[in-house]
Amino acid sequence: MRLTEIRIAGFGGQGVILSAIVLGKAASIYQNGFATMTQNFGPEARGGACSAQLVISDSPVLYPYTTQPDIMVIMSQEAYNRFARELKPGGRLIVEEDLVRVSDLTGDPQVYAIPATRLAEGLGKRMVLNSVMVGFFTAVTKLLSADAVRKAMADSVPSSFRELNLKAFDKGYDYGRTAQAGALPELEEVGYAQE
Amino acid sequence: MRLTEIRIAGFGGQGVILSAIVLGKAASIYQNGFATMTQNFGPEARGGACSAQLVISDSPVLYPYTTQPDIMVIMSQEAYNRFARELKPGGRLIVEEDLVRVSDLTGDPQVYAIPATRLAEGLGKRMVLNSVMVGFFTAVTKLLSADAVRKAMADSVPSSFRELNLKAFDKGYDYGRTAQAGALPELEEVGYAQE
Repeated sequence: MRLTEIRIAGFGGQGVILSAIVLGKAASIYQNGFATMTQNFGPEARGGACSAQLVISDSPVLYPYTTQPDIMVIMSQEAYNRFARELKPGGRLIVEEDLVRVSDLTGDPQVYAIPATRLAEGLGKRMVLNSVMVGFFTAVTKLLSADAVRKAMADSVPSSFRELNLKAFDKGYDYGRTAQAGALPELEEVGYAQE
Repeated sequence: MRLTEIRIAGFGGQGVILSAIVLGKAASIYQNGFATMTQNFGPEARGGACSAQLVISDSPVLYPYTTQPDIMVIMSQEAYNRFARELKPGGRLIVEEDLVRVSDLTGDPQVYAIPATRLAEGLGKRMVLNSVMVGFFTAVTKLLSADAVRKAMADSVPSSFRELNLKAFDKGYDYGRTAQAGALPELEEVGYAQE
């Protein structure tokens, strides 16, 4: 587990912060590594935007801000417009495909898209979209073991929602295991369709 | 709202992180300031300890770690032993009085103690001790308005527990409005009583 910088961003109520906590716990408590999670509150929080910076490593983390994230998980268009350009060249971009139009891509990222909100609705609760995203993240990045992330998730959600969140995790994980990094022609088409 | 560094620490399940989130939201969303909250995961998290660093300011926060906190909120002995010495000279130390023995004080802090767990149990749910602590914090530090913190709390807890957490806030707030910074002779006695 090399030092990996991750930004997770979306709007309030999507479970952005909880996603970061689950991944941080998985890395540290269940895979014996280290992590920091930093959450900024400010004008963007007043607008309903929400963003977390997560740094995961096998040694203590000395600087908790992400300058050029290796991985981004983006769940709203506003977050995409604001943060996408910070992604490290060749980094991995994970998006909620119904909420984010991927456009103006530079730096040749690998793009992974999932209709997490729809999949969560299929389970009866839109609010578990973050757990679908976390499952998808786990499958496509292979950064953390699925077992560690599931344990961290079971720890982190209210017990009455544990089963539902684990189902959502599995849904995203299974989707991710069969997913390929998005083919660029298709993504460009989506991009140009915007206005 | 000058730049104020705060550390909140205790053990897992006490709501340490949620307390930091509520105060960060109050400062930023409801008082138009800025805040960052950083949570470290690592060996201490594996041991069940839990700590958050919160920086609140009326301008953007450039560095999210606390080096010498102005205020500490301590909810376990382990957290006290580990962090108390970092408090800024003349800073404010807020403790859960049944869980923390204050001893070996240096730097002449102002000490505020509250039996938050017992007060929370009096409301029927020990788990709201963090909201009692947040109310107490609000009253004794006067850093944030009670109204802003109540709103942030209402936003941050599950709706089924909203009333209970606000009651817990009020309990701690009322306790704090009548509290005085702990008289040192009494505290030293407690300190020497330890072994």
